[in-house]
Amino acid sequence: MKKYNESKTKVSDLKIAYIGGGSRGWAYILMKDLAQEPDLSGCVNLYDIDFEAACCNEIIGNRLSAREDVVGKWKYEAKKTLQEALTDADFVFISILPGTFDEMESDVHLPEKYGIYQSVGDTTGPGGIIRALRTVPMFQKIALAVKEYCPKAWVVNFTNPMTVCVRTLYKTFPQIKAFGCCHEVFGTQQLILDMLKEKYGVQAKRTDLKTNVVGINHFTWLTEAKYKGIDLYELFGEYVKAHPNGTGVHTNPNWVNLPGTNLNMVKFDLFKRYGVIAAAGDRHLAEFCNGYWYLKDPDTVKSFGFTLTTVEYRKKELNSRLEKAKKYASGEAQFVLDDSGEESVRQIKALLGLGDIVTNVNIPNMGQVPNNPKNAVLETNAVFSEDSVRPVFAGEVPLRVNALVMRIIEEQEAVVEAGMTGDYELAFSVFVNNPNVNLPFAAARKLFDEMLENTKAYLPFYEQYKRSRNNG
Amino acid sequence: MKKYNESKTKVSDLKIAYIGGGSRGWAYILMKDLAQEPDLSGCVNLYDIDFEAACCNEIIGNRLSAREDVVGKWKYEAKKTLQEALTDADFVFISILPGTFDEMESDVHLPEKYGIYQSVGDTTGPGGIIRALRTVPMFQKIALAVKEYCPKAWVVNFTNPMTVCVRTLYKTFPQIKAFGCCHEVFGTQQLILDMLKEKYGVQAKRTDLKTNVVGINHFTWLTEAKYKGIDLYELFGEYVKAHPNGTGVHTNPNWVNLPGTNLNMVKFDLFKRYGVIAAAGDRHLAEFCNGYWYLKDPDTVKSFGFTLTTVEYRKKELNSRLEKAKKYASGEAQFVLDDSGEESVRQIKALLGLGDIVTNVNIPNMGQVPNNPKNAVLETNAVFSEDSVRPVFAGEVPLRVNALVMRIIEEQEAVVEAGMTGDYELAFSVFVNNPNVNLPFAAARKLFDEMLENTKAYLPFYEQYKRSRNNG
Amino acid sequence: MKKYNESKTKVSDLKIAYIGGGSRGWAYILMKDLAQEPDLSGCVNLYDIDFEAACCNEIIGNRLSAREDVVGKWKYEAKKTLQEALTDADFVFISILPGTFDEMESDVHLPEKYGIYQSVGDTTGPGGIIRALRTVPMFQKIALAVKEYCPKAWVVNFTNPMTVCVRTLYKTFPQIKAFGCCHEVFGTQQLILDMLKEKYGVQAKRTDLKTNVVGINHFTWLTEAKYKGIDLYELFGEYVKAHPNGTGVHTNPNWVNLPGTNLNMVKFDLFKRYGVIAAAGDRHLAEFCNGYWYLKDPDTVKSFGFTLTTVEYRKKELNSRLEKAKKYASGEAQFVLDDSGEESVRQIKALLGLGDIVTNVNIPNMGQVPNNPKNAVLETNAVFSEDSVRPVFAGEVPLRVNALVMRIIEEQEAVVEAGMTGDYELAFSVFVNNPNVNLPFAAARKLFDEMLENTKAYLPFYEQYKRSRNNG
Amino acid sequence: MKKYNESKTKVSDLKIAYIGGGSRGWAYILMKDLAQEPDLSGCVNLYDIDFEAACCNEIIGNRLSAREDVVGKWKYEAKKTLQEALTDADFVFISILPGTFDEMESDVHLPEKYGIYQSVGDTTGPGGIIRALRTVPMFQKIALAVKEYCPKAWVVNFTNPMTVCVRTLYKTFPQIKAFGCCHEVFGTQQLILDMLKEKYGVQAKRTDLKTNVVGINHFTWLTEAKYKGIDLYELFGEYVKAHPNGTGVHTNPNWVNLPGTNLNMVKFDLFKRYGVIAAAGDRHLAEFCNGYWYLKDPDTVKSFGFTLTTVEYRKKELNSRLEKAKKYASGEAQFVLDDSGEESVRQIKALLGLGDIVTNVNIPNMGQVPNNPKNAVLETNAVFSEDSVRPVFAGEVPLRVNALVMRIIEEQEAVVEAGMTGDYELAFSVFVNNPNVNLPFAAARKLFDEMLENTKAYLPFYEQYKRSRNNG
Repeated sequence: MKKYNESKTKVSDLKIAYIGGGSRGWAYILMKDLAQEPDLSGCVNLYDIDFEAACCNEIIGNRLSAREDVVGKWKYEAKKTLQEALTDADFVFISILPGTFDEMESDVHLPEKYGIYQSVGDTTGPGGIIRALRTVPMFQKIALAVKEYCPKAWVVNFTNPMTVCVRTLYKTFPQIKAFGCCHEVFGTQQLILDMLKEKYGVQAKRTDLKTNVVGINHFTWLTEAKYKGIDLYELFGEYVKAHPNGTGVHTNPNWVNLPGTNLNMVKFDLFKRYGVIAAAGDRHLAEFCNGYWYLKDPDTVKSFGFTLTTVEYRKKELNSRLEKAKKYASGEAQFVLDDSGEESVRQIKALLGLGDIVTNVNIPNMGQVPNNPKNAVLETNAVFSEDSVRPVFAGEVPLRVNALVMRIIEEQEAVVEAGMTGDYELAFSVFVNNPNVNLPFAAARKLFDEMLENTKAYLPFYEQYKRSRNNG
Repeated sequence: MKKYNESKTKVSDLKIAYIGGGSRGWAYILMKDLAQEPDLSGCVNLYDIDFEAACCNEIIGNRLSAREDVVGKWKYEAKKTLQEALTDADFVFISILPGTFDEMESDVHLPEKYGIYQSVGDTTGPGGIIRALRTVPMFQKIALAVKEYCPKAWVVNFTNPMTVCVRTLYKTFPQIKAFGCCHEVFGTQQLILDMLKEKYGVQAKRTDLKTNVVGINHFTWLTEAKYKGIDLYELFGEYVKAHPNGTGVHTNPNWVNLPGTNLNMVKFDLFKRYGVIAAAGDRHLAEFCNGYWYLKDPDTVKSFGFTLTTVEYRKKELNSRLEKAKKYASGEAQFVLDDSGEESVRQIKALLGLGDIVTNVNIPNMGQVPNNPKNAVLETNAVFSEDSVRPVFAGEVPLRVNALVMRIIEEQEAVVEAGMTGDYELAFSVFVNNPNVNLPFAAARKLFDEMLENTKAYLPFYEQYKRSRNNG
Repeated sequence: MKKYNESKTKVSDLKIAYIGGGSRGWAYILMKDLAQEPDLSGCVNLYDIDFEAACCNEIIGNRLSAREDVVGKWKYEAKKTLQEALTDADFVFISILPGTFDEMESDVHLPEKYGIYQSVGDTTGPGGIIRALRTVPMFQKIALAVKEYCPKAWVVNFTNPMTVCVRTLYKTFPQIKAFGCCHEVFGTQQLILDMLKEKYGVQAKRTDLKTNVVGINHFTWLTEAKYKGIDLYELFGEYVKAHPNGTGVHTNPNWVNLPGTNLNMVKFDLFKRYGVIAAAGDRHLAEFCNGYWYLKDPDTVKSFGFTLTTVEYRKKELNSRLEKAKKYASGEAQFVLDDSGEESVRQIKALLGLGDIVTNVNIPNMGQVPNNPKNAVLETNAVFSEDSVRPVFAGEVPLRVNALVMRIIEEQEAVVEAGMTGDYELAFSVFVNNPNVNLPFAAARKLFDEMLENTKAYLPFYEQYKRSRNNG
Repeated sequence: MKKYNESKTKVSDLKIAYIGGGSRGWAYILMKDLAQEPDLSGCVNLYDIDFEAACCNEIIGNRLSAREDVVGKWKYEAKKTLQEALTDADFVFISILPGTFDEMESDVHLPEKYGIYQSVGDTTGPGGIIRALRTVPMFQKIALAVKEYCPKAWVVNFTNPMTVCVRTLYKTFPQIKAFGCCHEVFGTQQLILDMLKEKYGVQAKRTDLKTNVVGINHFTWLTEAKYKGIDLYELFGEYVKAHPNGTGVHTNPNWVNLPGTNLNMVKFDLFKRYGVIAAAGDRHLAEFCNGYWYLKDPDTVKSFGFTLTTVEYRKKELNSRLEKAKKYASGEAQFVLDDSGEESVRQIKALLGLGDIVTNVNIPNMGQVPNNPKNAVLETNAVFSEDSVRPVFAGEVPLRVNALVMRIIEEQEAVVEAGMTGDYELAFSVFVNNPNVNLPFAAARKLFDEMLENTKAYLPFYEQYKRSRNNG
């Protein structure tokens, strides 16, 4: 049970449940941030379907807590069941990999045989849709467990597809206190900081920029952007005009094989088309648009200065993280306690009443975006205060891009419904509507069925679907 | 001033203004229907930018009224100005051709050079968008004239793009009492009557079918369809399954050159994709979908059993109508007074309090479709009663097709805004988003600019646009 | 299972469940109307908590069916359980008396000790609120039974408080197909027909008047009223001005003791205050207004020309109905087959696809009244068609009366919630807010507690409430 | 033109227009707060219909700026016209007295002859309604002037009736950037701080309390209240239970004649009735409720421990302020530069991008309160950021009090409409509906007409009304 000290400045005995984390990426950032926060302490329950991974993280976490230079002392404990991990938790973090790299391989690369290229494949497009179908049942299960074991906990999701995951949590347990966090918006804010510096020599911080965020995760837009009397929209527009080839040149000759690399050319192209600043990385933005614009074929991708993320690359990346993890566990390596730029610890403090913050999160639409449907999970600014996350009124999505935004909202709503009820025909409806699926009907059907087959281990309703397909 | 007889069964001294009609199509249907209606009489003011055409119609109308077998006696009068035509009108019918066949030629066929094929080109797609831009100012002008000369008149639109026209009327004069009529839905109802007859031997009437209409004009859907205990959805589904090649075979070997000809294969394909009955002709439906599905190239069109409407064909068709008109005017030919199947006269009677009817019309969304934006002009059922047209609650657009519906709503809303304000950049934003414009950015821009140039005579803000393009 | 004949003009084997009916009022009207309808036939299951009453009605119904001059042949059968009555029903009619005259005595007359007079006491005010609290659990039970035994049946409610009953049905079983019918609006339409006759000598029918109905049951308003070119609003206004003492003089010197008697003075007074035509009887209208206007004391009531309905009077009335019933059962008396003016049989036919009608009913707000909350049960016009009742868009409640309408909506919503969950404190909140409860807090509390005590036999959560009151 | 310094920490050359201020109350607080703020400077234009009063304030302001201990240097200048005052203003403050004490005398005391007592009479009730009618045209004028002379300025209103004033600004000039400020909520937060101190010995600050504000000005509610792990609702409830006679005893035997004095007994009574914390002073709260609860007669008022504010008292108070002002102008007295607790200067800084704040303000409902009408001016929390005030989603008004809230929203909406259009019949409709106007119809009419007559000098449409009354 969490406890405030007498002067109400510190909270101890907090209980955090961390679901997933086997991938070691985000888990370590949280550990480091907690370690640097003097006003909070308690225990972190680690749960992963790979129990060994959780145990390894337990060792790493406790090693960290034991360090003398660490002011935030936490006890890490691997748990064998979701129940054990969640019982009485104050906060729940979810950062799982839905399925394995085998399913991801099918998501991302099978469509290539049909001429469909995806730069990420985890949010929309054929890959994003199929990934969503296997993720939804996992989040149903988590939501039910939260309902049973810690209904008043704050649940923070980091898993993709973000919107689908958060929506599933709320559809399954409407009273859940959940939100989703993603740092894609930060990247665009950083880009604006660079522009500010280049033009005015000003070295500002991200939080000094006053931006109004609107949209859905990975396809968010800044509808207002100001910095102390400077209109950042004007600044952005001038920059785009002056930089027809994006923010620079690729310095690494091998850049085409380095996912994440990009020159913001998609972002700038969208600005030219719509006059609105898109606030996510190019490889995400591209996937929400007409497939012929940025993802027609590898050459088109290259011409826009960004890259496709292969699953092979992801595997390599994971391996190097696992190597690193072993070293952390053995003590061979140590975390460097730097500023992660992430906001989770500040959010926790705000939710405990230790200082309000305003930041962008993914939560259901209660009216903050009047021209998007109620309950759709949207990304906007919100006020974090004691035991509350309340959206700030964000205003309408600009008319110019709202058709694109509405399309993905409808797609994801249908996918959640399909995943929860097993109505995979509904999922197919949006699959064939996806702007990257420029295929004849029969080919689209074949691709869908193959992809579904490849992920069937995670689909509770697959057998029924198969039967009805065979009969239909 | 309209007058009711003592027993309140007849109304005389009605004043109808008819704007357009030079094309002779719909004008003659109305004349014939009025001629057969014994309970109404008055005068019809004819206004057309081609005054001679109006004069010709005056002669034809008065000849008709003079016939002994005609029970509905009307006085037809060509008017030189909109003011004269509209002053004190009780009803205003609008059926104009926005621009000439030259502009239509550019709308429909210029995109073919870029590999874009259109089956109609008057509602959406590159052609529909450009046509809308020149139509909007015409409807602004009409709305202002109605406001000044007959603010309490009922205004009935037949011009395409229907949604754009009606929306412009309301945006310009919000108190206008306007609605739009189109008989595309009737065609699908007829198709269902045929199915009923084939399966059950039942010879029912269109009005016996109980259908719930939802959507936007030319892209409407029947979300419920019943006939006295028979579930028409089931019937439709069985029929589609049993008829993989649509409703028949083309009997005319030259069918590819006969616009309007179709086998309902697009309608059936959409049913297979979404499980919803689309209620418009195939050549319209095709244009709202991904360009690669039905309109990729002439072969694809042919494989779906429908045809492209060339402007050359339209010209021929008009010529034959003009020939016919001359004969009517000279007395060489006479109208056959049959049942047109159109509803305008029944609507007029209902609006005069002579009997309510329920039928589908295009009016602003006041809440009849909760998951579409308020004020968007939608096609649903409505109750026509004395001096009122009130929509019937239609319910949500099915999730499976709502993304497609929302896209066209957003497109048309933007086009109206662009047409009214001259913000052609906004129009370009939706032009490049159109699912038939699968072009690289530069090519899309070039096509847009060429098409705009070709229609500039009707664009009040064209010069400003040109200048800003040259500067930008 | 209902069956259509081959020419689709008649339906046989219909199954109607009739819940309640012991009071013999409305049940006999339905029997007579069914008897006169040649196109429908089937069986009517009669269920009443007083089984003997149901048996008596069985005899009466079957006697009626056996008459030679009866064209609508039905088999009446008393059923011992709700399950038997409802199983596979096509239509369910609910017309029950919630509780006995003892509870009604407390509802209506106990408040008089506190200086609160009620003209009906079944809809709002102290009596209406307490009556609602005991009615809600009964309707929860019925809704659950419908869900289990005939989920696709159309459920028609006649019980008061109408709004509360229908709202409870929907809150308990959201997929229910239910609506509520009341003829109060007809009375005002009749009043307008009388005015029409007086001024113009026109003998019109109720359905010739084109009225737009908006509001909640017993507190409805006509926001538009037209008759073939005649503005009925103007007519009404002139009449009110010319008749400061209402529609006539009471001819019976004993009129004060004859409930139902009224001179429309309340209706006219409301018209003077708000300029809107209230469409319910005076004794109902009075109860929704400030208690000092019409119900301050018996003299005030008298001065407005209407009367208080005593429970004693109701008892007498029931007795005479029971006497009559005995005679019907024994054959001593016979129904006269006249036109009841009720719409149930026409509604049944419309729902079977045998002809649409538009009439006013009580259904949840789906958007038909934009300035009232969604889901509140409102009375507006609706289109009855095959297997559907769809509201017609009614528009906003006039600003002048909407505060009054919103108040009763909020009251009834709270009462339903209180009745369903046992949160009687919530009910007390609206009890003390009621404009007829002009009492100090302590007195209001005492009255509420006494009234609740008197109705406790029907309150499933009463014991908990009592305990918390004793503790609190 | 405002200027930021190079390091973006200070803004100079700001232009503030201050409208009103003759009453010297709030104007001096702003002067003092500006004087203590080192990061802002510029000029303040003073405009009052009493030009001498503005000149006096000019002297006082400039004297203050000249003081050595003053860090915020401003130039004060009295202006003869609204145009001069507003041209190019960055901020506009409005704090006027609508009319004179003579009109206020009629507002507050004339109803007493009819047995109606008002504790303030400036927001609702007969006095508030009539005051609103004369205030609306003044705010129309201001809004039009803002539109013409400084359309991008932020406009801050302090005048009552707050809601009516802000609503009028937006209805007249929808693009206005206006909000209304009031410190009534602060008082309740202070009360909670006292409770916290009493129970836990904690000395917290107002901004440490995390409260969710919802409602309309002077009738606001805290739906959530937390302080670092302490549930303030629980605390409040316990306190209320333990203090049946409110927060203390009146120490001054003459307390009945000291307006503002109160024991929070009304607030506590409302908590007992509804279980919700009302966040305004008792004398305001009382006026929104049934007139028989707290304002029946002077004895009832006294029994609830609060007082009626007489206009005589107000005059005395003003005189003492004017005396004081003379001394400030002559230098005989000097401002003490203490912490005012007001937020205007912090709000200005936030709007300039110098640090976001979250606080409660009165702005149109964009969706922050889903069960209140869109565009109604509501009081909720909002985020002040650079050039933006965005409401925080506040959630629904609790069901228990929403009927009361909706009533006042409807009243004020009607009053604004009436004031803008001269439809005083509409105003009368809400006047007779007001829960303090427990009068027979004729008496209510007489009171209304007398009050209107007394304020006619400020009513642009009075003559028409008079004529129609004489004719009607």
